[in-house]
Amino acid sequence: MKLIRYGVAGQERPGLVAADGSLRDLSAEIGDVGGEFLAPRVMRRLRELDPQRLPLVEAGARLGPCVAGTSNFLAIGLNYRDHAHEIGAAVPGEPIVFNKAVSCIAGPNDDVPLPAGSTATDWECELAIVISQDCYEIEPSQAREFIAGYCVCHDISERKFQLEHGGQWVKGKSFPGFGPLGPWLVDVDSVPDATALSMWLRVNDETVQSSNTRQMIFTPDQLVAYLSRLMLLRAGDIITTGTPSGVGMSRKPPRFLRSGDRVSLGIEGLGTQQHQFVSRAR
Amino acid sequence: MKLIRYGVAGQERPGLVAADGSLRDLSAEIGDVGGEFLAPRVMRRLRELDPQRLPLVEAGARLGPCVAGTSNFLAIGLNYRDHAHEIGAAVPGEPIVFNKAVSCIAGPNDDVPLPAGSTATDWECELAIVISQDCYEIEPSQAREFIAGYCVCHDISERKFQLEHGGQWVKGKSFPGFGPLGPWLVDVDSVPDATALSMWLRVNDETVQSSNTRQMIFTPDQLVAYLSRLMLLRAGDIITTGTPSGVGMSRKPPRFLRSGDRVSLGIEGLGTQQHQFVSRAR
Repeated sequence: MKLIRYGVAGQERPGLVAADGSLRDLSAEIGDVGGEFLAPRVMRRLRELDPQRLPLVEAGARLGPCVAGTSNFLAIGLNYRDHAHEIGAAVPGEPIVFNKAVSCIAGPNDDVPLPAGSTATDWECELAIVISQDCYEIEPSQAREFIAGYCVCHDISERKFQLEHGGQWVKGKSFPGFGPLGPWLVDVDSVPDATALSMWLRVNDETVQSSNTRQMIFTPDQLVAYLSRLMLLRAGDIITTGTPSGVGMSRKPPRFLRSGDRVSLGIEGLGTQQHQFVSRAR
Repeated sequence: MKLIRYGVAGQERPGLVAADGSLRDLSAEIGDVGGEFLAPRVMRRLRELDPQRLPLVEAGARLGPCVAGTSNFLAIGLNYRDHAHEIGAAVPGEPIVFNKAVSCIAGPNDDVPLPAGSTATDWECELAIVISQDCYEIEPSQAREFIAGYCVCHDISERKFQLEHGGQWVKGKSFPGFGPLGPWLVDVDSVPDATALSMWLRVNDETVQSSNTRQMIFTPDQLVAYLSRLMLLRAGDIITTGTPSGVGMSRKPPRFLRSGDRVSLGIEGLGTQQHQFVSRAR
């Protein structure tokens, strides 16, 4: 099952993608793709609906971020063996955790404004976990109950702000538009193995990341359990699980995004995003 | 004006503290102390009300966190000269920014559960800024328009998780109960100078922190402007501005909190918090 949110930014409505590819409205079934509606029993009920009986979404609707009401947008650093290798970092013994501001969450195909003064905006294709219900101090073996599903996340990163302005990484990870989520939330039961999915990212027409989630160091189940021992996770919280090799700052010479660059990215079974980087009107 | 939220956790209602000390209900005036109700024009309207005409809050009501709907709970590290000095750190050239999980927000007098395995839970009395409305790329001279007011924040910190588990500080800053806010949100117009307020924290009957916000390195106006250049701040977002000298980890030998310890803390004009640290029932 592929859940979407569609419509004008800030006024999205819930929907799903039917087997025939048509988008169907779920407003009569759930309030949103978020909060209490991410609970396992609601997901089971939605899976039993006949999509052909749901209203069609009008053609050309914008896709919004596929999850609403995120209270914690957590991210994992250096979680792919190939990425740790490319930047010459040791494989971490524990997950490296940082935050993205929830106000950076955007639709999968929205334009991304380059921040004022940005010289080093970089790409990172990632698998994101969506939390289904309150979750505290659980074991990895229990994690699936607390995972609503998965989606593609583009963990856009301004390296100069992330690394050269002192302190923690949140500084380069949080600009408006820097967290596109979607196109769909795929429910956990439709993803038999989240640790064996191919993933890729293209800048304009060049493939720059091409890897597989089996390069992950800490698995989604391990990450949810680990984080649940540090904080109460809530329904709709996002954990984006790190990026594989091929980021711009690792290239020789480094390559960063400029106005007009088009980025597309995808993960096997989770769909694709496409967005353009733009200078902002001031 | 002192705004409060009162009632059972998760179902708080808005109110205020009248000049005679009585608590008055604001449910007929605003939906909550949060979101759109933090805007300057709403604050002005509330200041014009006659508190004696508002319903009395029932005696003994619990105080909840004084702000609702926080989407970013940001914190500043090493922002007091006396604290940087006591831990032997250089005065930072730019604010050090980290996150606390919003799910750690608690009422000012709620018991604080010690996390499982905690050996180094420490105290930090702080002045917190509450954002009034969307705020992006502003100058320090504009900051007051975007500050709804100030409150006391206890930035409780588990030092072992913060510093010894790899990566970023969020790990030791986010346990449930680790972010008591209140007792009141004092609106910005009632705080003539947020950089000249005495502040203190006591553990049981010993005063361990005693300082003044004039020890701050970056002022509230500077911090709001600085953060607004890294992310979109939203109404209800919290920026807690760092702690002065006197934390437990700086004592020789270090001293940390144990079950049964009572902590009280306060800031001039912003009221006091009192809470007990407890072992959790498992």
